[in-house]
Amino acid sequence: MLVVQKYGGTSVGDLDRIANVANRVAQTKKSGNRVVVVVSAMSGETNKLISYAEHFSKTPSNVEMDLLLSSGERVTSALLSIALQEMGFKARAMTGRQAGILTDEIHTSARIEEINTCALKKLLDDDTIIVVAGFQGISKDGNVTTLGRGGSDLTAVAIAGALEADLCEIYTDVDGVYTTDPRIEPKARKLEKISYDEMLELASMGAKVLQNRSVELAKKLDVNLVTRSSFNDNEGTLITKEENIMEKPVVSGIALDKNQARVSIVNCEDKPGIAAEFFGVLAEKNINVDMIVQTNSHDGKTDLDFTIPKNELESTKAALDGYKNITEAIEYDTDISKVSIVGVGMKSHTGVASSAFKALAKENINIKMISTSEIKISMVIDEKYSELAVRTLHEVYNLDK
Amino acid sequence: MLVVQKYGGTSVGDLDRIANVANRVAQTKKSGNRVVVVVSAMSGETNKLISYAEHFSKTPSNVEMDLLLSSGERVTSALLSIALQEMGFKARAMTGRQAGILTDEIHTSARIEEINTCALKKLLDDDTIIVVAGFQGISKDGNVTTLGRGGSDLTAVAIAGALEADLCEIYTDVDGVYTTDPRIEPKARKLEKISYDEMLELASMGAKVLQNRSVELAKKLDVNLVTRSSFNDNEGTLITKEENIMEKPVVSGIALDKNQARVSIVNCEDKPGIAAEFFGVLAEKNINVDMIVQTNSHDGKTDLDFTIPKNELESTKAALDGYKNITEAIEYDTDISKVSIVGVGMKSHTGVASSAFKALAKENINIKMISTSEIKISMVIDEKYSELAVRTLHEVYNLDK
Repeated sequence: MLVVQKYGGTSVGDLDRIANVANRVAQTKKSGNRVVVVVSAMSGETNKLISYAEHFSKTPSNVEMDLLLSSGERVTSALLSIALQEMGFKARAMTGRQAGILTDEIHTSARIEEINTCALKKLLDDDTIIVVAGFQGISKDGNVTTLGRGGSDLTAVAIAGALEADLCEIYTDVDGVYTTDPRIEPKARKLEKISYDEMLELASMGAKVLQNRSVELAKKLDVNLVTRSSFNDNEGTLITKEENIMEKPVVSGIALDKNQARVSIVNCEDKPGIAAEFFGVLAEKNINVDMIVQTNSHDGKTDLDFTIPKNELESTKAALDGYKNITEAIEYDTDISKVSIVGVGMKSHTGVASSAFKALAKENINIKMISTSEIKISMVIDEKYSELAVRTLHEVYNLDK
Repeated sequence: MLVVQKYGGTSVGDLDRIANVANRVAQTKKSGNRVVVVVSAMSGETNKLISYAEHFSKTPSNVEMDLLLSSGERVTSALLSIALQEMGFKARAMTGRQAGILTDEIHTSARIEEINTCALKKLLDDDTIIVVAGFQGISKDGNVTTLGRGGSDLTAVAIAGALEADLCEIYTDVDGVYTTDPRIEPKARKLEKISYDEMLELASMGAKVLQNRSVELAKKLDVNLVTRSSFNDNEGTLITKEENIMEKPVVSGIALDKNQARVSIVNCEDKPGIAAEFFGVLAEKNINVDMIVQTNSHDGKTDLDFTIPKNELESTKAALDGYKNITEAIEYDTDISKVSIVGVGMKSHTGVASSAFKALAKENINIKMISTSEIKISMVIDEKYSELAVRTLHEVYNLDK
C-alpha cells in the first residue's frame, strides 16, 4: 500500500513526540508500505513566530508572513527524517516546493493548483520514506506560500490524491469521529466509517478533527481519509465515499453548535429581491449566514429568520441598521444553539425528523427554527437545553449501540 | 550608492536588536542609497536547531541539516522586512533561492557557483529594500544548501560582487580591525583601511571579525568590505585593494596565534621526496600544517620543523608513528605560540625583520622558528612570552600612533 500520514502540531510537539512519530512511521514502513509523511510545525512554534511578527506590525505583509510561518514545518520535517535515517531507513525531508506543491498567489491562504509528483515518485521508487513540510507550497513567481488554517491536512490530502495513495491518515490527539461530543454524552461511540458528506455536516461538532477544506478536497480527489490519534493504537475513523459504506446508518451523529446567534426580521415588506438585499449586505461584510428560514407571506409582510456566528453579531447589527424602516423590528437572540442530526440513511428513511421533534417535545424543548437537507436536520433551540437535546437525540437514534 | 549590509547573529539577537537594525537600514536608505541586507539567524537559534538534530543522531545527514539550519535566517529576514515595511519602506524578504544564489551540491559547506541577479535587480529598480536570508542557497537539483561557517558573510560578499555594489558592510559586535588584540595591548588602534592580503594574514588575530573565505571572495570579486559594529556609530575598517590604500604603512598589525604546536623531525635521512612523504601522510588525515622550516642538510641528515593546530596533536602523532625509524627523534612542543608582523609596506622596506629580532632579543625572548612571506614575518616563541612579544612589537613599529 501507499500510505500518506499527516502528524499535527501536538503529535510533533516536542523531541520525544517526534521520536514517537518516527516509531509509528517505521512501523508502517516495516509492514511493507510505501510512506509519505506530512508534518506540521511543533506546537507553539507558529504562535511564537506570529507574536514576533506582531512585535513589529499589526498588519504584517502576507508575503513576509508566509516566509516566516513556513519555517516551522521545515524544522519538523528535517528532524523526523534524521530520526528515521538513524533507525536505518532511507528518508528524505522536503519542503513544499521540493515536493512539487504549486499554489496560486494568494499569500497566507493559497490554494494548491497542481502537484508535480516527479520528485516524490522517484524517491518512493527508491524505497525512501518522504517527510514533507506541510502547510506550504510555492507560487508560479517563485514565492513561498502557505495554505491557511488546516494547511498541513490539505498538503496530505492533495499529495494522497496526486499519488493515488491507498490511504491518507490524519493523526491528531483525538481517536476519530464520534457520534457526538463525548464531553456531552459519555455514551458517544467512535464511528468506524463515515461518508464525506456526513463528515462535512458534522464538522461543527465539538471534536473538530478535520477542517471542511480537507474533507472537501478528499471528496473531490477520492482520497480515503482516516482520522486517528498518534498517542494510542486505536483504529480511527475512515472517511470515504458513500458507496464504500455497506451498512448505511440512518443517523451517524449529532452535532452541536453553540456559536450561532439568531436574527429575526419581523414583518418585513415582502417584495421581490428583499432577501437578496439583506443577504447581499451581509455578504459584503463577509458575514457567514448559516440557517435561513422564511415563513409564508401574509398581508404583504413576511418573517425572515437566519443564524450568524455569535462573534459577528455587532457587525451584523451595523450592516442591518439601515433596513429598520422596511421592517417592524429586527430582533437578535444570542441564547440559542443549533443541534443537527446527520446521516446519509435519512435519504431513504422517513420519520427521522418526526422522531426528533417528538423526543425534544417530550423534554419540553421548544424548537425555534428548523432547516433540513438531504442528510441533515438542524434545529435551533434555547441554548440552556443544548446538552439535554444532544443526549436525548443520541438515545432516540440508538447511537450508543 | 548601492550598499550591501550584513548583520550577524548578535546584531539580530532579539526583537529589539532587529528593530535597531531596521533603524540602521532605514538611515542608509534615507541617505539616498539602494540597499540589500543580508541577515543571519538570531543568535542561539542555530545552536538550538543543532542540539535538536543531535537528539536524534550523532551524524545527521547533511541534506537534512541544511533544510533544518536554513530556517533560522528565513525568520530573521521576514521579521526585518516586516519592520521596514511598518516604517513605510518598500521591502521584500527573500530566501537564498529567491535571491538567485546557486551553489554546488556539497551540503553544509556548499560553494556559491553563480548568482542570478534578475530578481534582485528588479526589486532594486523598484526602490525596494531587499532582505536576504544569509548562509543558504540552492543546488542545481533543487535542494536547499548552506554555506558553512561564516556563510552569511559569503552571501553578502557574493551579492555585492554580483551587483557590483559600491560597498559591502559586515556588521558584528566589534568596531573593526585593530593593530593587535586590544585585550593584550590596550594601546591597539583601529585601522581605517587594510588590504585584502593583510586581512588574510591577520585573520588569526584575537578579534576574528571576518573569516578568510569571505575576504578571499571579496578580493576575487573586487568588493570593498567594511567591518563595523551594529551597536555604535563608529566608522569601521575598510578592507580593499592595495591600490586603494594611499599611505601604505610598513606594518599594519601584530597577530598572535596560541593554538599551534611545533613538530620537530630531528636528523632525518635527507633524500628526495622525504618531505613529500611526511606532509602527504598529514594531508591524508586533513591535518593543517602551517609554518614549515627545513635547515641545511649535513652528513646526509636534515632537521624539519613545522607547526600544526594544537587540537590535531594526537592525530599527528599517530600519523607520524610509522616514520620513527628514519629519524633520530620526532619531538612535539605545545608550549609555543606564533607571533606575526603583517604589513604590505614590508615589500618595499628593509630592516623590518631585524627590528623585530632585536626588540625580542632585548626582552630575552628566544625565537624558535622563523618564516617569512612578502607581507608577513611569523615567529614561533615560548608561549609564556606571547603577550610581552605582542606589546614589544606593537611598540617597535609605532602602531599606537
